[in-house]
Amino acid sequence: MPLGEFALIERYFRDSGVRREDVKLGVGDDVALLAPPPGEELVAAMDTLVAGTHFPFGSSPNSIGHRALAVNLSDLAAMGAHPAWALLALTLPNADESWLAAFADGFAKLARIHEVALVVGDTTSGPLCVTVQVLGHVPPSMALLRSGGKADDILFVSGTPGDAAAGLAIEQGRLALSDAYGASYLRERFLFPTPRIELGQRLRAHASACIDVSDGLLGDACKLAAASGCGVEINFTDLPISPPLGAAMSDERARMLALTGGDDYELCFAVSPHALEALQRDLPASDWGYRRIGVLREQMGSVVTRDGIVMRFSHSGFEHFAGSGGK
Amino acid sequence: MPLGEFALIERYFRDSGVRREDVKLGVGDDVALLAPPPGEELVAAMDTLVAGTHFPFGSSPNSIGHRALAVNLSDLAAMGAHPAWALLALTLPNADESWLAAFADGFAKLARIHEVALVVGDTTSGPLCVTVQVLGHVPPSMALLRSGGKADDILFVSGTPGDAAAGLAIEQGRLALSDAYGASYLRERFLFPTPRIELGQRLRAHASACIDVSDGLLGDACKLAAASGCGVEINFTDLPISPPLGAAMSDERARMLALTGGDDYELCFAVSPHALEALQRDLPASDWGYRRIGVLREQMGSVVTRDGIVMRFSHSGFEHFAGSGGK
Repeated sequence: MPLGEFALIERYFRDSGVRREDVKLGVGDDVALLAPPPGEELVAAMDTLVAGTHFPFGSSPNSIGHRALAVNLSDLAAMGAHPAWALLALTLPNADESWLAAFADGFAKLARIHEVALVVGDTTSGPLCVTVQVLGHVPPSMALLRSGGKADDILFVSGTPGDAAAGLAIEQGRLALSDAYGASYLRERFLFPTPRIELGQRLRAHASACIDVSDGLLGDACKLAAASGCGVEINFTDLPISPPLGAAMSDERARMLALTGGDDYELCFAVSPHALEALQRDLPASDWGYRRIGVLREQMGSVVTRDGIVMRFSHSGFEHFAGSGGK
Repeated sequence: MPLGEFALIERYFRDSGVRREDVKLGVGDDVALLAPPPGEELVAAMDTLVAGTHFPFGSSPNSIGHRALAVNLSDLAAMGAHPAWALLALTLPNADESWLAAFADGFAKLARIHEVALVVGDTTSGPLCVTVQVLGHVPPSMALLRSGGKADDILFVSGTPGDAAAGLAIEQGRLALSDAYGASYLRERFLFPTPRIELGQRLRAHASACIDVSDGLLGDACKLAAASGCGVEINFTDLPISPPLGAAMSDERARMLALTGGDDYELCFAVSPHALEALQRDLPASDWGYRRIGVLREQMGSVVTRDGIVMRFSHSGFEHFAGSGGK
């Protein structure tokens, strides 16, 4: 790709995001000089999206721009951090102007919502691949971690997991809905996930542990539990299901998707029983859209229960499993 | 690529680089919690290397690992910053163990030299592409910039530019040397460039402007001059040529390569005439390996002179050009 085309590309990103006083200098296109808030700890997240792996080939560039930033913001949300600056490394086979404009627009819209300044934009020629790095900050020793949970802490999830997985299935033609509104809602949940930045920041005062749900709720809840030295029990019937997801498939299948589908970018967090009252008072579930789904327990491993009976995961799905104890 | 293989990959990077007390937590594989030194400004650099664009297909993975970190460290060197932490996003088509071991080794060796901790290692499946982000710090308002130069400042370059371009030509079979030692030296300059971290830090006290030479000395000197609101004059016969480069080709061709070849990762810096004595005293050229190559001037644009005569760049190379002024 000739240099002139890259100059064109960089033009699209020069005004992406917002201007911030703490950006001392965008020195070149690949270096920035920043003034972090005094005394705060720094949070750095970096994620790559590859065509064909993290999004279908031919995906909407507007969505790719949004998601490349969103998955990183979600990492910061899980720590209760304030996002500040983003660095973008964009590798693309050619400089398609309309593609770039839509990508930059998707990126910039989300950046503006969270007051994130794009401080570095490095563009190279090659197979489509987007790496975004987001820097943020958090008061010292206040970051929410995966490892702070204790047995008997109550487990919650924000939003309605499973929607993004259903949306991806619709995108890929593996799922068809007669309800156009419902299909559009589910596709949006995959294409434009909502990083729960403000909820994460508020949870610093309430949660004992937190993780963002990127690889599927069950798997990520297990990671939180393992990091906390606990096991986890999830109540299948407590899993929140959005009306469009509930209408699109059987209740059983919807909850399985909520449990194992990926790309939700919701927060899964644990709260000590003693802190429940303050949580409900300061962050009412009705306002903040989270739901109790289970509990951390002393016994390691994970169990999913329905009507008090432990379910067992198999290749063909969940089955009832007589007995207790777990995986 | 199955998850198990990624676990394997991550093993290679867990102990790359060094451990630092200011790494509060490598939270997951894609987030880190860091404590920047109080009061310092933060420098963030990010560069992508794509197979076939930034290195030949089939390049030594040891070199790719080294270069992915080196090109970012060089950005920090140009600002006089102290590197601290690195984040790595590695996209690769398959988990070839010997490839990964060599890549991680090349990365880690350089990281150890500069006490850089690898705090995030995100691995994904796709066409080979390496993005590294390096974070460092610099005392407030002390960062070396491209923009501080003034007319009559003396221009210097470290090392012997042109070596890397010759090394790449040897790698690609476009240049053959009868001298095996010389060929090996030149290849090394391409495969394992030396980021001038310590020189950059020392230059904060002496230089008015600095840039790292990644795209060719003439082009990068022009960028420095333009950012400083100046023009630049380079004396062709002052360009430093390494003995192996000088032996490999005509003097004319060697100096042209020094002027326009890329991938050197040397520092090109400007020093006020009043600061020359202190520079020579504190950083003797004989110890630090830099050389005077020209001067910044009021008139915008760039000229290369030989024996007081302005040379002119054409597609077929440099020509003498009767007259003065002008690119």
